[in-house]
Amino acid sequence: MEHIKNYINQHQERFISELMDMLRIPSVSADSKYKDDVLRNAEFVKKSLVEAGADKVEVCLTPGHPIVYAEKIIDANLPTVVVYGHYDVQPPDPLDLWDSPPFEPVIKDGLIVARGSCDDKGQMFMHVKAFELMMKTDALPCNVKFMIEGEEEVGSSNLGNWIRENKERLKGDVILISDTSIIANDIPSIDVGLRGLSYVEVEVAGPNRDLHSGVYGGAVANPIAILCEMISKCKDENNHITIPGFYDKVLTLTKEEREELNRAPFSLDEYKKDLNIDDVHGETGYTTLERTGIRPTFELNGIWGGYIGEGAKTVLPSKAFAKISMRLVPNQTSDEITKLFADHFNSLAPTSVKVKVTPHHGGEPVVTPTDSIAFKAASMAMEATFGKKPIPTRGGGSIPIVALFEKELGLKSVLMGFGLDSDLIHSPNEHYGVFNFLKGIETIPVFFKNFTDLSK
Amino acid sequence: MEHIKNYINQHQERFISELMDMLRIPSVSADSKYKDDVLRNAEFVKKSLVEAGADKVEVCLTPGHPIVYAEKIIDANLPTVVVYGHYDVQPPDPLDLWDSPPFEPVIKDGLIVARGSCDDKGQMFMHVKAFELMMKTDALPCNVKFMIEGEEEVGSSNLGNWIRENKERLKGDVILISDTSIIANDIPSIDVGLRGLSYVEVEVAGPNRDLHSGVYGGAVANPIAILCEMISKCKDENNHITIPGFYDKVLTLTKEEREELNRAPFSLDEYKKDLNIDDVHGETGYTTLERTGIRPTFELNGIWGGYIGEGAKTVLPSKAFAKISMRLVPNQTSDEITKLFADHFNSLAPTSVKVKVTPHHGGEPVVTPTDSIAFKAASMAMEATFGKKPIPTRGGGSIPIVALFEKELGLKSVLMGFGLDSDLIHSPNEHYGVFNFLKGIETIPVFFKNFTDLSK
Repeated sequence: MEHIKNYINQHQERFISELMDMLRIPSVSADSKYKDDVLRNAEFVKKSLVEAGADKVEVCLTPGHPIVYAEKIIDANLPTVVVYGHYDVQPPDPLDLWDSPPFEPVIKDGLIVARGSCDDKGQMFMHVKAFELMMKTDALPCNVKFMIEGEEEVGSSNLGNWIRENKERLKGDVILISDTSIIANDIPSIDVGLRGLSYVEVEVAGPNRDLHSGVYGGAVANPIAILCEMISKCKDENNHITIPGFYDKVLTLTKEEREELNRAPFSLDEYKKDLNIDDVHGETGYTTLERTGIRPTFELNGIWGGYIGEGAKTVLPSKAFAKISMRLVPNQTSDEITKLFADHFNSLAPTSVKVKVTPHHGGEPVVTPTDSIAFKAASMAMEATFGKKPIPTRGGGSIPIVALFEKELGLKSVLMGFGLDSDLIHSPNEHYGVFNFLKGIETIPVFFKNFTDLSK
Repeated sequence: MEHIKNYINQHQERFISELMDMLRIPSVSADSKYKDDVLRNAEFVKKSLVEAGADKVEVCLTPGHPIVYAEKIIDANLPTVVVYGHYDVQPPDPLDLWDSPPFEPVIKDGLIVARGSCDDKGQMFMHVKAFELMMKTDALPCNVKFMIEGEEEVGSSNLGNWIRENKERLKGDVILISDTSIIANDIPSIDVGLRGLSYVEVEVAGPNRDLHSGVYGGAVANPIAILCEMISKCKDENNHITIPGFYDKVLTLTKEEREELNRAPFSLDEYKKDLNIDDVHGETGYTTLERTGIRPTFELNGIWGGYIGEGAKTVLPSKAFAKISMRLVPNQTSDEITKLFADHFNSLAPTSVKVKVTPHHGGEPVVTPTDSIAFKAASMAMEATFGKKPIPTRGGGSIPIVALFEKELGLKSVLMGFGLDSDLIHSPNEHYGVFNFLKGIETIPVFFKNFTDLSK
């Protein structure tokens, strides 16, 4: 491990500086006005991989944003690690809550602050730099392939087709992904489950135009009020989701599995203090770890309608909208849940309004194995670099593509992430610890070594 | 009446052209960025009144937007009509729904299209032009005072103080206001009741920052979902408002009064067709005319929270907001209802969120007399110019200042409006008929004549 530490010590300032260059590119995949920036970021990733020593580096165009492919095959008889990551980022809104501009990265108290610093540019770039390290120190023990996409934050809509068209090129033994968190910098952990996702936008339309609320109020359906009613009818008083059939396929964990899950270090007091809330809020009968790990959810991500400017306007608006996402657990499927929701939501609408449900994107829930060579290689690598054996955890988030990798490529994934839940991903002031960035670069080569050795 | 028609025929093009000049001024009182435009509009009103022949014309500054005062005293023994109107307008949002820019007036199919064309610049300007007509044709039969304010759309917050400070100057016999509607161009009507208003903004705050909905969803209160729940708990399944004490002081109409009210010409089919809705929606047990005329309401005017941009963002937002207004009927009072609402809303909040209720503005409900000289003068004037006796109606909207005039000046108001409910006031493509504008200018001098004659 000495060569790893030496190389990192020599080059860490450049690593960080290069990451910050990439963070200056506003690669927001959700908003078409950033399309050129997303492409520019793909070119940046390509250049980094070329410089690190990869072969066949290519910006693969898709009907949406491009996928960057690269590989280094040193011996066809050795195993192949396929690295997945993404270079696109969430929109930076609300802008006024950022302490510094989202695309002008700064380092503050050991944290790299910028949109995408953790999710996932910083974590993806660890792999590029770890690859560079292995190449420059002659320590690459096996083959590696890179598949870095630009649509993760909008549902990876074109990755599926691309994978199906490139099955041959993507042959490998495991998918390695760093897009998740550890419990704390001194408590390493590895996600062994991810929730799926169904993301929809709903529209409730009342009268054909905005009306004066004094003249028409009380007699015409108010789309905002109706939308609120319909939303509140999607959960009961126990915060149990009321969509008929929603829980039918949910895989129930055994008492032992739940006890195991709840043994993860967790302090409810610290959790509440960190969020400055007086109480948590969720499904009756489940702990916070269960609510975020093994139970499906129904969350409002956005709502808007009527007058939202300064002051008062007495309008009865024509329409109201909401963005709703449901996190799914094994064995729910995204398409089925989206349909159940749409049917239920439509059934809740009174005759005085019209309802439209538009699916945005989805992803399937996954559970990754803990008895595989790849998981052991990751666990041992983290134990070596953190000095502590990592705890297997269930992540609440979704990387929808993990299920697809399994289906299309027959490959299991290892979710060896280095972020923290407090990194404010998807939020203003997103950041990523310099410690975590460098710790990732240190751990990845050890994973490669372990995986190669264990595969023999 | 011949001199009236002749003068209008000669000058109508100039009248309309002057109104259009004023409509080009974006006098949006709710938004501070238009402050200079609001002042510019006050100066425009001043200039128009000076040119029409008024004395002591003054732009009276207030801590908010100014009030324009003017008068013409021809004989202290004759009665005095105090004309009230407002030159401020509603915000023009949503801009993308306007067929032509809101502050670039156009005439289309006999309609003057612009923000404020009806509410209230067009209706207020009828009085300026009718005054000009009476002055230029030597036909002013009594004294007149003008009080034209710039804060009606934001609750007239400074008019109250100004009235108290100017009681002597405002002495008169009746307040004449054109800021309401007639049933149709061939069915004249006069509003004899107006609802009051309590307008509040609410904030529901959950965690101290926007969170990733995958990592925290299901375990932390979602402010949007909680806000929706709280809003939906403010009405029951009969659309009856559930705020404790809300209906306690509501004046109940007799069976005869309700029958009288429901005799006004009204077609539910045409109403639904006009709004393109399959059904109306309101309090069980009341007709549409009752729901908008004599019953209090609880309406959502705006809602916002989380991600409302293009595409998807999996955020669990820190806060959600709504603008809510309640229309009040006799004998509800604005302050009391605002307090009842705030208490109720706070009581609905679970411990996992914090709630803030901010009152915006309010106004008291009023009923104007139908047996007064002023009402008779208005009724006869309309009968003379429309050829049909006007129907007394109850308006759903609020002109909060009417109650204040009675309290502070001891003066009753006459609500002789010439708009139509279909004029899209407060909405995109607000318009005012050229017919209605000229009919108002024609009717007002007849009112002055009738009022003077009946006062003898």
